[in-house]
Amino acid sequence: MATINAITGGVTAPKGFLAAGVKAGIKKSGKQDVAIIYSEVPAAAAGVFTTNTMAAAPVVISRKVAASGVASAVAVNAGCANACTGEQGTLDAQQMAKEAAAALSVPTEQVFVASTGIIGQTLPMDKLTAGIKDAASKLSKEGEADACMAILTTDTTEKKTGYTFTLAGQTVTIAGMAKGSGMIHPNMATMLGFITTDVAIDSTLLQQALKAATEVSFNMVSVDGDTSTNDSVFVMANGMAGNAKITDADSEDFAVFQEVLTTVCTDLAKKIAKDGEGASKFLEVNVEGAASFASAKKIAMAIAKSPLVKTAFFGEDPNWGRIICAIGYSGENIQPADTNIWIGDVQVVANGMGADFKEAALKAIMSKDDIVITAKVGNGEEKATVWTCDFSYEYVKINGEYHT
Amino acid sequence: MATINAITGGVTAPKGFLAAGVKAGIKKSGKQDVAIIYSEVPAAAAGVFTTNTMAAAPVVISRKVAASGVASAVAVNAGCANACTGEQGTLDAQQMAKEAAAALSVPTEQVFVASTGIIGQTLPMDKLTAGIKDAASKLSKEGEADACMAILTTDTTEKKTGYTFTLAGQTVTIAGMAKGSGMIHPNMATMLGFITTDVAIDSTLLQQALKAATEVSFNMVSVDGDTSTNDSVFVMANGMAGNAKITDADSEDFAVFQEVLTTVCTDLAKKIAKDGEGASKFLEVNVEGAASFASAKKIAMAIAKSPLVKTAFFGEDPNWGRIICAIGYSGENIQPADTNIWIGDVQVVANGMGADFKEAALKAIMSKDDIVITAKVGNGEEKATVWTCDFSYEYVKINGEYHT
Repeated sequence: MATINAITGGVTAPKGFLAAGVKAGIKKSGKQDVAIIYSEVPAAAAGVFTTNTMAAAPVVISRKVAASGVASAVAVNAGCANACTGEQGTLDAQQMAKEAAAALSVPTEQVFVASTGIIGQTLPMDKLTAGIKDAASKLSKEGEADACMAILTTDTTEKKTGYTFTLAGQTVTIAGMAKGSGMIHPNMATMLGFITTDVAIDSTLLQQALKAATEVSFNMVSVDGDTSTNDSVFVMANGMAGNAKITDADSEDFAVFQEVLTTVCTDLAKKIAKDGEGASKFLEVNVEGAASFASAKKIAMAIAKSPLVKTAFFGEDPNWGRIICAIGYSGENIQPADTNIWIGDVQVVANGMGADFKEAALKAIMSKDDIVITAKVGNGEEKATVWTCDFSYEYVKINGEYHT
Repeated sequence: MATINAITGGVTAPKGFLAAGVKAGIKKSGKQDVAIIYSEVPAAAAGVFTTNTMAAAPVVISRKVAASGVASAVAVNAGCANACTGEQGTLDAQQMAKEAAAALSVPTEQVFVASTGIIGQTLPMDKLTAGIKDAASKLSKEGEADACMAILTTDTTEKKTGYTFTLAGQTVTIAGMAKGSGMIHPNMATMLGFITTDVAIDSTLLQQALKAATEVSFNMVSVDGDTSTNDSVFVMANGMAGNAKITDADSEDFAVFQEVLTTVCTDLAKKIAKDGEGASKFLEVNVEGAASFASAKKIAMAIAKSPLVKTAFFGEDPNWGRIICAIGYSGENIQPADTNIWIGDVQVVANGMGADFKEAALKAIMSKDDIVITAKVGNGEEKATVWTCDFSYEYVKINGEYHT
């Protein structure tokens, strides 16, 4: 484990990154809605994107930038997702990249684009173009705070994190910001992540590291099970830290970078799971003793997605019957006799049957805001952790009363 | 299509069936909680059961009865699921069958057993045994009304259906009753179905017909996605209608029987989807143009299970973005250009983009209690229909406030 230090700065903390967030009038609320993150030198670039077959136009454009391995900037807007917008949507996403490239004097093919907001509406290109120009003119180290605001939709709070660490004597920084609501809001269901680092790394290794980090972080957040049309995570690594460039997947430097990148992604994923207007509790679901990571994840997701489990925790009811039932229908062949379940440190199920536990101890755990559920499902070596939140009245209110 | 006539009677409408429902004190409410359905002659028997690996003890016993192909009775209790009860649970379920067999003077191996209620508690055998004896002494044609009540847990209403039809000049009757709540209640998540008929049919064909009927009825009900430890559907066919015994799967008689059995199962499945304390709307999700039934079902289930879609309908918001998003993450490879969606008869999505529809017409449809969603996802020949209900404040209230 490398020595890593948390920092308070955001995506401009790494050397050579600037950002800005401006009000372009796309959000009805009038809040910041267009942001740019800019690297002073072309950066190694990578991205992971939604698997939804209805992927939005900006996702299609950004996949190409990630494949090229080089990016100089990200341009993003909130308030309109540019999803399900057909040919016009594709043209608009291309134009968005072109406008940002012109304003920043970088090649169009080096600009990631992202959009989040209402599905089925085309981008208001006049407002967006003006916003991009405005943001490009306001780039600064301090601009990350406004950028952090500009990517939000129904999030109740900004989400950012960052760390410094040392690679062969050089100080390196990784930082990130994200949007995404614990409950994933109607028509704004997007999860976006933006990560910047001044590490010098080969872009193929950067993509490999991002994929591995995403697998155990963003992909382990279950909120209501819906995967959006716009989900994207971007990373840019501009090399300005001056470390010896990482080019070997078996090197110690790569291992350290992977570890810190995973920490950044995990921080952001947990912040997303915690942030739902409706969420009253943050739930960590651990599955241990599985035959494979995939099996452990499938079981953990079955528990985390169960509306019955989620409403039970909202009601502070330690209803282990719902947890064991979810394990039973997960699709993995888990037998009752191999099943043990803990809520916090209180064992509630022993070998498939109710354990003899103290009600008072369990009640104290259920009343907390952060609760850990652990299920041991056999004697396998593999495990997985998923984060989610409870299902509350507010969830239904928010998602039922929001009107298109 | 055969001429079939709906009847008002329940599971005792077919010749040779009697039933009773009694108050044994297992339900805290003091309502009817033990029921018996009895056939005056041994009947061909079949059953379909939960795929949950935590299957309850009565399911294990009843699977053997179904495999034998002969049954004379079903004994069922509500208030305690006898699930996650280990070795004691198995012994209790066996004893339950034995007590019913003794009271009815039939072989133990001809008695189906079923339980529904709280998970993790053992059966109160004294009360149950007394209840079984009481029910056995009160068997009658009229007893089906009490039996129908005795199988309920949090259901708001009894669910029964039945039809008569003609097979080569003989009048035949099929009837059924079920329990199951649209929202599937905590710890009482069980769906139980009991079907009786006086048709004469080979038990292997009866099993085949039940399996086919279940596939397009009970298996097409999505409520909150949780499959319980106790789900079971039983059918007994005692042959007292005097029709020429159905022994050929390719015969016209079998086709007619299959059709009516499927209608009975579909009636009951829809009644389950409609009945949730929290449900304010009944939703029918049709997927057409799919490459296979499995593909159509997978897409329809993705839509029907989406909490975002379900809350949108609760809020009477025609939020088609959530529907197309669910299609996109269903796991089936559906492209936007092939996707068309209707709510009622109003097309809301044309080739993956918002259609030009009249708001007022759509608003009128959204305000109804029964709403049909139709998605055409390509030019395939296959289709599927799933039934579900909306997600309401009441759902969270019921499932959050219920305490174990």
